[in-house]
Amino acid sequence: MSLRHLNEESILQKIKRASTFEAKKHGKSLKLGMGDDAALFVPTKGHEIILTCDWFLEGTHFLIDKHPADSVGWKCLARAVSDVAAMGGTPRCSLLSLALPEKLAGRWLDEFLAGLRRASRNLDCVLAGGDTTKGERVLISVSVIGEVKTQIARRRRGARPGDVVYVSGKLGEAEAGWQILKSGSKKIKRTDKRLRKHFYPVPRIALGQWLAEKGFASSMMDLSDGLSSDLARLCGASAVGARIDSSKLPLSRIAAESMKLKMALHGGEDYELLFTVPKRRTKKLAGAFRGTALTRIGTITQKRQLILVRENGHEEELVVGGWDPFR
Amino acid sequence: MSLRHLNEESILQKIKRASTFEAKKHGKSLKLGMGDDAALFVPTKGHEIILTCDWFLEGTHFLIDKHPADSVGWKCLARAVSDVAAMGGTPRCSLLSLALPEKLAGRWLDEFLAGLRRASRNLDCVLAGGDTTKGERVLISVSVIGEVKTQIARRRRGARPGDVVYVSGKLGEAEAGWQILKSGSKKIKRTDKRLRKHFYPVPRIALGQWLAEKGFASSMMDLSDGLSSDLARLCGASAVGARIDSSKLPLSRIAAESMKLKMALHGGEDYELLFTVPKRRTKKLAGAFRGTALTRIGTITQKRQLILVRENGHEEELVVGGWDPFR
Repeated sequence: MSLRHLNEESILQKIKRASTFEAKKHGKSLKLGMGDDAALFVPTKGHEIILTCDWFLEGTHFLIDKHPADSVGWKCLARAVSDVAAMGGTPRCSLLSLALPEKLAGRWLDEFLAGLRRASRNLDCVLAGGDTTKGERVLISVSVIGEVKTQIARRRRGARPGDVVYVSGKLGEAEAGWQILKSGSKKIKRTDKRLRKHFYPVPRIALGQWLAEKGFASSMMDLSDGLSSDLARLCGASAVGARIDSSKLPLSRIAAESMKLKMALHGGEDYELLFTVPKRRTKKLAGAFRGTALTRIGTITQKRQLILVRENGHEEELVVGGWDPFR
Repeated sequence: MSLRHLNEESILQKIKRASTFEAKKHGKSLKLGMGDDAALFVPTKGHEIILTCDWFLEGTHFLIDKHPADSVGWKCLARAVSDVAAMGGTPRCSLLSLALPEKLAGRWLDEFLAGLRRASRNLDCVLAGGDTTKGERVLISVSVIGEVKTQIARRRRGARPGDVVYVSGKLGEAEAGWQILKSGSKKIKRTDKRLRKHFYPVPRIALGQWLAEKGFASSMMDLSDGLSSDLARLCGASAVGARIDSSKLPLSRIAAESMKLKMALHGGEDYELLFTVPKRRTKKLAGAFRGTALTRIGTITQKRQLILVRENGHEEELVVGGWDPFR
């Protein structure tokens, strides 16, 4: 079909084909997928439904000439799924709102859908429905529907003075990759290892479930905008403060030495988990979960202030400096 | 707060305030609303979950200088809820993805949220979560989560030869209003009765539920893109055709005489229900439901073709001519 004649129906057909394999596998919970007015999903007994949505916009969240379409497809789903992981839940299905210029409805769309499909399969989150329209730029909004056993969901609220602050994985790695991508004049391959976390973040679903079900986490959220911004949100919701040891932060290896700490504190898009554990429970918590490091980075305080303790013992206010699209 | 310092957090706070009243009322089913990583919703026993999402974009779906912000807020939710109504379901909660230029984060946003809040209350569909970011234009994507008793949901598939084709309400009224708005040089008041259906469509929730629960509808969908486009979709899904009597179509009173039929056939955004009823069941179906007319407009045929029968008996192919953003 020539692109000139490509209309909404045929784009929806393309998207539908990309979700077919999944619909079979998820036949039990996803009763009706794409192609009708709405999708039908059968909830699991004894579970609550988790709902979240996330923007992914050309120019704001990705650059059409820098980011492979495949990565755009992967990442738009992964980052929304990360919110489900942050509650301790399991993703079930997604809704894709996609607007794109007609010239991208060919190869770009195919690669985008390939990335999305791979993410759907890896994260076990079937594409249940969507809406497409024409746009001057690529606009993506993804909603994810997840489930969590009743009473198990972890929130930002719940951290108490004395609780230990943990993060999973390394901090600032996605940001370091983004800086390499932005500044590079050469075309970066989508398989470049330095860009892996920026292009293809993996939300910590199994870890989030485990922390919630075992009752380790008193509060939890995912790191999307950067530690300084997100820790401020967790502390705000919990009405507490925190002291962070800069020497304990699990820094990215790929960042330049002088930038490592800054990227760990303020770099966005790591999609690691930030969580707090009551002190008496920390003995039972190992330093890793299935190969992912779990690092103690500080302590929750009664005083509602974020403090960064430097290696030399000097204390300073941790100023919020993460990503904010309006700043 | 000065607009220059307005950031994502404060916009989310505004949106959160707009949803507070609802969170109380819906406390039982909406366990956790805005402000955390995701929302938590408790599904009703014996029900399936309905999922749908809809774009509402400045320039494509509304004009910033023609449409009152209040109408944009109402309509972006109402049109997504209409997909739930079309399955015979009940809306429960929504997710709002909103991008907007900083200059609209003041009064425009307040009026938008007032319209959205009014729609949420009227349609009994609480705002459960959202995501905001900066955009050069206003971008809106709304996801709606609904419920329907197990096995009750109506689909586009299911119409059989001999079934009678019905529509609710009048056809082409929203399109007629849109033409008045587009062509008018004078500022149109948001209370102008001719624009009521274009500015503030009311999805047929109670009718859809009733048709599904009483088992009248063999197939059903909502009219969003125009009868010719949507009937083609229903017939395609059901692998049937249809004959429509042009003299039976419930025309809009506000359209110019010469345009009435065209608008009824191809005008979009009426958000009325299109449904089919097995012939033997039609005797039990009155000509109205709670004041909304239910009009027989034709018959489902085995031959997979859409035929329009003119008043003089002349038959012609009903060419698909409704809204398609890619055409």
